[in-house]
Amino acid sequence: MIQTDILIIGAGPTGLFTVFEAGLLKLKCHLIDALPQPGGQCSEIYPKKPIYDIPAYPEILAGDLIDKLMEQIRPFCPGFTLGERAETLEKDSEGQFLVRSSSGTLHRAPVVVIAGGLGSFEPRKPDLADLELYEGRGVSYMIKDPEIYRDKKVVLAGGGDSALDWAIHLSELASELSLVHRRREFRGALDSVEKARELARAGKIKMYTEAQVTGLIGERELRAVQLTPNDSTQEPIYLETDAFIPLFGLSPKLGPMGNWGLEIEKNAIRVNNAYDYQTNIPGVYAIGDVNTYPGKLKLILSGFHEAAVMMQSAYARIHPDKRYLMKYTTVGGVSGFDGTKKEAKKEVVQTLD
Amino acid sequence: MIQTDILIIGAGPTGLFTVFEAGLLKLKCHLIDALPQPGGQCSEIYPKKPIYDIPAYPEILAGDLIDKLMEQIRPFCPGFTLGERAETLEKDSEGQFLVRSSSGTLHRAPVVVIAGGLGSFEPRKPDLADLELYEGRGVSYMIKDPEIYRDKKVVLAGGGDSALDWAIHLSELASELSLVHRRREFRGALDSVEKARELARAGKIKMYTEAQVTGLIGERELRAVQLTPNDSTQEPIYLETDAFIPLFGLSPKLGPMGNWGLEIEKNAIRVNNAYDYQTNIPGVYAIGDVNTYPGKLKLILSGFHEAAVMMQSAYARIHPDKRYLMKYTTVGGVSGFDGTKKEAKKEVVQTLD
Repeated sequence: MIQTDILIIGAGPTGLFTVFEAGLLKLKCHLIDALPQPGGQCSEIYPKKPIYDIPAYPEILAGDLIDKLMEQIRPFCPGFTLGERAETLEKDSEGQFLVRSSSGTLHRAPVVVIAGGLGSFEPRKPDLADLELYEGRGVSYMIKDPEIYRDKKVVLAGGGDSALDWAIHLSELASELSLVHRRREFRGALDSVEKARELARAGKIKMYTEAQVTGLIGERELRAVQLTPNDSTQEPIYLETDAFIPLFGLSPKLGPMGNWGLEIEKNAIRVNNAYDYQTNIPGVYAIGDVNTYPGKLKLILSGFHEAAVMMQSAYARIHPDKRYLMKYTTVGGVSGFDGTKKEAKKEVVQTLD
Repeated sequence: MIQTDILIIGAGPTGLFTVFEAGLLKLKCHLIDALPQPGGQCSEIYPKKPIYDIPAYPEILAGDLIDKLMEQIRPFCPGFTLGERAETLEKDSEGQFLVRSSSGTLHRAPVVVIAGGLGSFEPRKPDLADLELYEGRGVSYMIKDPEIYRDKKVVLAGGGDSALDWAIHLSELASELSLVHRRREFRGALDSVEKARELARAGKIKMYTEAQVTGLIGERELRAVQLTPNDSTQEPIYLETDAFIPLFGLSPKLGPMGNWGLEIEKNAIRVNNAYDYQTNIPGVYAIGDVNTYPGKLKLILSGFHEAAVMMQSAYARIHPDKRYLMKYTTVGGVSGFDGTKKEAKKEVVQTLD
C-alpha cells in the first residue's frame, strides 16, 4: 500500500504543479494516471503543439511545458502510479482515503486531489467480435513498454500520429511490423509521414491501406488477424501476429469517479470556488479542467491557481494544530525533500573604500 | 484624452498579463503606473532576484519574468502612461470611467482593472525643511530620464542598490556626481559595489560617507546642498549642485485609490471571488495582490488566473449583445492587433505511397 500526504488523481499539468505547491508546505505527493507517462493530454495528445496562453511563455510546446513542470517538482520527489486508472475511493476507519487502481494498487492519504482533466483517456476500440477475450492475450490499446514487442510480429492499426510514430519506433524492434489503415491518407506531422514512407519503401513497415482488421484468430492467445480490403472484390488476407494494437485515439471519460458520490454537473465535479475548491466530500478537492463552478474557465493557468489555493486548505486539514503563514519563494527559497535548496543570493554589505 | 477598452491601473506582472487575456477577446488596453517603467516591484525592487513559484519556470529572475510578459503582450500593442499615479476615478454621463493621473493625463474606458499590487510605490523622503518647495526645482526621488542630468552636477543620497546603480550610470553623464550615504557600508549586489568602488577611486564618483544632506540652498531653484558629517566635531560642507536625488527606497501606499469609494479591507480592495473579481463599483475590477477575498493568496500566479476570469466578465459588460465562447490558443492561435498571427502548424494529410 502506498501511503502519502496528498494523493493526486491525474498527472497532467495541474496535477504536476500541485506537487510543487504541496512541497512548499512540506507535504508529500503521489500521482495516479491512466496514461503510461506524466503530462496528461499535453504528452499523450499534442506534445508538439504550441500553447500561447501560459503566462510568461509567449509560446511553449505542450511537451516542453510538461518537461519544465517535471523539473520544477523534481526536488519534491513525487511518487507515480502510471498506466493504472483510479477505480474506487473509500474512507477507512481512521478517516483516511483509500484509492484502488485498475491494477489493484492501493493508495492511502488524508487528502485526495482530483486533477483529472477531461477524465481518463479511454482508448477507442474497434468493433470486433470477441475483442475483450483477447485483451491482455495479444490485443492492447496502449504501448507502455515497447521492449515487450522485441522480435515479435506486430500489427498496428490507425492513421494518425500515434499509429505512425509507434510504427516507426517498433519497426526497429519487431521481427515484423504491419500497419493497417482503412484510408490511403495518413494524418500526422510531416516528418512522421515522411519517415514512415521511407521505412515502408525499405520493407521495414508492411503497409496495408484501404483495409481493416475484421477478425481475430487464435485459441487463448492471438495468433493471426483477418484483414478485409475496402474493395469488396478482393479476398480477405490473414496475417500471422503476436500482437494487435489498434491506435484509434483516446476519448476522455469521467469514468469510475462518477460513482464516488461526488456532485457531478455537466460531466464535471462541482466545487465551491468561494474558498478552496473542495468537493461535497470533505478532504476531496477537484482542480483544473475536471471541476466546475460559476465562472469556471478551462485554462491550464486556472488549474495552477486552484492548486495553490486548495493546498492551503489541505494543509490546515492535515495539520489542524499548526498555523501556516504563506512565505514567498523569493524570500525563503525552495527546499526539496531530496536535500536540495534553491534561494536568492543574500545581499552583499561592503564598504566602498 | 486616452480612450481604451480596458484601463489597467498598475503595470506589474498581473496588469501586464491582463493585456494578453484582453487581447484574446479583441479588447484593447492602456496601463497607468506610478513607476517609470513596466513591471512593478519585479522591475523596480528586485529585478535580479529569482522567483521559484511561477508555474513551469523552475527559476526565473523577476526582471526576466517581466521581459517575457512584455514579449507575450507585444502583439496586443498596449498603451502606457508611466511615471504618473492614478489620482481620481469618476464616471461620466455615458457610464464610462474617467481616470486622471498625477500629471493631469485623462483616460477614459468602459472598464477599469485595478492591478495595483501593494499600492503605488511612494518614495521615502528625507526629513528636510522646505523639501517640497524644491520638488521639480532640483529635487526628485526617481530618475525617469537620465539624459536630463547630462553635463549637470548631481548629488545622490542613499546606500542601497538603487543609489549604487544610478551613481554608476550617471557618473558617465553628469559633469559631477556625488554620492552621499550616512554609513560607510553599502548594501547592494556584489558587482554594483565593486563597480562603484572602481569609479570612486578613478574620481568619477565623489563619495561622501558617514554624512547626511541636512539643508537645501537656492532661490526658486536648488543651487547647493549642505552636508553634515556624522562626526559632530567636523564642519558642514556645501556642495554646489543642479540636482539632489535622495534614493531612500519606496514604500507601497494604497494612496488615492483609498478615496474612490471602493470597499477597503486590511489595506486591500474587497472583491467577490465567487464570480469575477469585481469590486463594489460595477465595471471596476481588482486583481492580483491589491485585492482581498476569503482564501486570497498574494501570489503572482493567482493574479494571472484572476486576469483571465475577470476578462470574461468585462467582455460581457462591453459587449452585452455578443455571446463569447472561450477558445483555446492551441486550437485557434493568437492574432495580434499589429497584424501578427501565431498558430500551430496544421496537420499534414498525405498518402504514404
